Amino acid sequence: MNTSFEVHGRSLIAGQMASPNEATVTRAFHGFNPVDGSALPPAFYPAHAADVDAAVLAAVAAAPVYGVLSGRARGQFLRRIADGIDAAAGCLIEHAHAETALPRPRLTGEVARTSGQLRHFADVVEEGSWVMARIDTGNPDRTPPKPDVRSMLRPLGPVAVFGASNFPLAFSVCGGDTASALAAGNPVIVKAHPAHPATSEVAGRIVAEAVEACGLPSGVFSLLFDDGHEVGSALVTHPEICAVGFTGSLRGGKALMDLAAKRPRPIPVYAEMGSVNPVFILPGALADRAEQLATGLHGSFTLGGGQFCTKPGLVFAPAGASSAFAERLQQLTNAGPAFSLLTSGIAAVYEKSVAARGHLQTAAGATAGSGWGAKTVLLETTFAGLAAEPALAEEVFGPTTLLVHAHGKAEMLQAARALEGHLTATILGTEADLVEYEDLLLVLESKVGRLIFNAFPTGVEVCHAMVHGGPFPATSDGRSTSVGSQAIFRFARPVAYQGLPQSVLPEALRDDNPLGLLRLWNGAWNSTRTNKL
Amino acid sequence: MNTSFEVHGRSLIAGQMASPNEATVTRAFHGFNPVDGSALPPAFYPAHAADVDAAVLAAVAAAPVYGVLSGRARGQFLRRIADGIDAAAGCLIEHAHAETALPRPRLTGEVARTSGQLRHFADVVEEGSWVMARIDTGNPDRTPPKPDVRSMLRPLGPVAVFGASNFPLAFSVCGGDTASALAAGNPVIVKAHPAHPATSEVAGRIVAEAVEACGLPSGVFSLLFDDGHEVGSALVTHPEICAVGFTGSLRGGKALMDLAAKRPRPIPVYAEMGSVNPVFILPGALADRAEQLATGLHGSFTLGGGQFCTKPGLVFAPAGASSAFAERLQQLTNAGPAFSLLTSGIAAVYEKSVAARGHLQTAAGATAGSGWGAKTVLLETTFAGLAAEPALAEEVFGPTTLLVHAHGKAEMLQAARALEGHLTATILGTEADLVEYEDLLLVLESKVGRLIFNAFPTGVEVCHAMVHGGPFPATSDGRSTSVGSQAIFRFARPVAYQGLPQSVLPEALRDDNPLGLLRLWNGAWNSTRTNKL
Repeated sequence: MNTSFEVHGRSLIAGQMASPNEATVTRAFHGFNPVDGSALPPAFYPAHAADVDAAVLAAVAAAPVYGVLSGRARGQFLRRIADGIDAAAGCLIEHAHAETALPRPRLTGEVARTSGQLRHFADVVEEGSWVMARIDTGNPDRTPPKPDVRSMLRPLGPVAVFGASNFPLAFSVCGGDTASALAAGNPVIVKAHPAHPATSEVAGRIVAEAVEACGLPSGVFSLLFDDGHEVGSALVTHPEICAVGFTGSLRGGKALMDLAAKRPRPIPVYAEMGSVNPVFILPGALADRAEQLATGLHGSFTLGGGQFCTKPGLVFAPAGASSAFAERLQQLTNAGPAFSLLTSGIAAVYEKSVAARGHLQTAAGATAGSGWGAKTVLLETTFAGLAAEPALAEEVFGPTTLLVHAHGKAEMLQAARALEGHLTATILGTEADLVEYEDLLLVLESKVGRLIFNAFPTGVEVCHAMVHGGPFPATSDGRSTSVGSQAIFRFARPVAYQGLPQSVLPEALRDDNPLGLLRLWNGAWNSTRTNKL
Repeated sequence: MNTSFEVHGRSLIAGQMASPNEATVTRAFHGFNPVDGSALPPAFYPAHAADVDAAVLAAVAAAPVYGVLSGRARGQFLRRIADGIDAAAGCLIEHAHAETALPRPRLTGEVARTSGQLRHFADVVEEGSWVMARIDTGNPDRTPPKPDVRSMLRPLGPVAVFGASNFPLAFSVCGGDTASALAAGNPVIVKAHPAHPATSEVAGRIVAEAVEACGLPSGVFSLLFDDGHEVGSALVTHPEICAVGFTGSLRGGKALMDLAAKRPRPIPVYAEMGSVNPVFILPGALADRAEQLATGLHGSFTLGGGQFCTKPGLVFAPAGASSAFAERLQQLTNAGPAFSLLTSGIAAVYEKSVAARGHLQTAAGATAGSGWGAKTVLLETTFAGLAAEPALAEEVFGPTTLLVHAHGKAEMLQAARALEGHLTATILGTEADLVEYEDLLLVLESKVGRLIFNAFPTGVEVCHAMVHGGPFPATSDGRSTSVGSQAIFRFARPVAYQGLPQSVLPEALRDDNPLGLLRLWNGAWNSTRTNKL
């Protein structure tokens, strides 16, 4: 297993390094070091139209072979990628640290998360019951005869995945979208995020090696570079692409949704986009532990430079009772360090957004001198102030949050009802608060993918129950999650087989249940290995 | 329980009869008798914008109450509707027969299907495991602590359902879309199909009575009339509507998809649209039982006047060996009766489509004299003929099919690969044929929602394993089914609860499992009533 990889700056098409053509050779781009803004070697060449086509056609060729691979074989493949990631952890962390300025300990954790979630999906497909096998054996004596119908989830076909800027590993080349799409049996073509191309190339080489080591068709995986929109658009509009995974801005995600909807054959886009992750601090909690809440909130909204999808960007606290809490939050903010943001674009938008909210600033941290630095900013307003400027409720990506002093339950409820869709909502309270604010719970549940009690929203556990999703505009499709084992369902569809002989049926649907799956057999769930009526 | 209802020609807004306003009073419309084209009493008034708003606002008010109703209570409500349908069967059948010309025995079967599928969903929600409860109890000793996360499916909110022309009961006011949306916990607003308004009003009154009898908020159900597109468009673009169910033409479905995608907040549209339902007759079967296949195919493509979504409209048979089969099919077609189609529009399009294919006609049944009559038409061509005129592969709604004489496995495979998405594909063959044509199976599986062996595609069994869906353009969303218990998943989304106290959690997610659901508890499925680590 390789521990390091030389970086070539080339796309990887079905295991082969691509070459620039006349048009793209002049459009080389670089990763940048956010700390000082310097360009990092080597040069990366954008993929061209023929590369996109070649990657998709290889994926099309691989799809039927890879799509019928056993869960055991698919699990081995995912574990092989995970082992490759762990083996090359040092190399990945150094590239990612240089390209993103995220601290090494955070990136070390992200490597573990990345290989961990690959193994999580390996567990799921090896066990196999995720295919939701349903068998109705019918009744030949009924008039008309009731047919034998069996269904299970099957892969969609080639999936395009867009790497995210803020998680160079866990939501990028072999992050959650790729892992879940591969787990479901789909070839994957990744469009690398241009903010961390070297990290992406190393990760891509690890996946390509695993494809080869497992004897899979090389088209199961390709990696394409581009620092513009051409490659992404070409992928999403390619007639043979069947679904899209994306993590990024609302603008970017919505553009992909629109492209996909306008195709002659529309396809699903799973875009995880903006979220402000509202937090409601209830009176009991504020009375009990204002200091602890201020420390927790400060840690959460500045984590990773505030560049988390689940950063708490809008915090409601009971006016009057909230002054000690606000004061502590101001102190923490004033004493906080500067951050280097991920890209010059993110830094510029952050600076502009914070400047536009300058009239609400009550505290600010150290100012960064060079590169894409950003200072932490605390904003405060009243419920009336927020109502007068609804744009304040929009996401600002970076280390800032808006504390809203709200009068009583009525204003909290009104604020909750006015919310759009978010990834999370958080309630900080006592159990007595919960009884008092039962309505608030019910309203928030209808607005988010995850409702959190007495914790902070940053940190999305990879587990079976996780929902990292939420109604639009948090995501393009509120019926899905991009984290946790349920993410696999995004890239599969049910197919029914009526009257097929046992010899031709997929193993998951055969009478004797050779895979030992949990199945819905004539309306009852069981995992009996020999099912006979 | 009422056995008959007077028909008033008015929309039903949250249990109240609506009145026309100045604009709509002049736009009354009628149902028609397809046999002679005569208008049927009474006059129906289109709903107006204020009606749509009132229905949606009532649904919004009902949503939180209805959405947390227990599965048992929701099941009782669905059973009450089913009982109401059965009690008023005679009244429903007479109206539907007058408005659609579908034969009474067929409509009698459709009543049973309609109440049966309501009870099928009642079974599902009473049992309750459909919510896919997942519980990860976490680990407070890990660093950082692993949180307690629990998730389950929750309703989306108010759903708009469009009645279908071809199933005045089973895919209409209280058909599969309504039943599954209500089962999932969503209020429903139905836009009645204008081809069977009286049938729709009776069905709507039955639902409204059930709402009242069960003590539910009246906004759980509304029924709106319109013979144009205003009401439908207003519903789909209403900010508070959360999802759409539709069965109809590709053009109609695509228009709704586009409307929904362009909303400020896009919503899912489940449109079941066009399908040609290709049939592949393999050599062994043709040699064994050409006569039986011809009889079966003729019955299937003329069933209900060929107005089934699953009508086999494109049939491939081995050239050379297929002449006896074709001859028998011609005889049956020539001897067949005329049909009355559902609407003047359908009859006109059918006549035009069949005329455009006149050069391929090899047999035709009796000609209907009056009303919206249609003759059965058999079309034949070769594989080369189809390749030269790809538009021949498009759906023609009505009693016609196209028999394609294909040379060998290569042409069959090529034809299969060229297919778009369909609801079904059918293989008629011997087991030896299946071995020989294994590739064909694999190709077809990637194109359809249901693969049928040695039966005909018409007749969609309501069961747990059924998939009545398929890749675009068969449906708007190939990850879903509109028939069978899995249809409930269209109208729900997962919500995660992190760290919530037991007292506040939904019953489905409490430690002691009071509902006895099958749940994924720390990665293992079980239905233990008291789960303790």
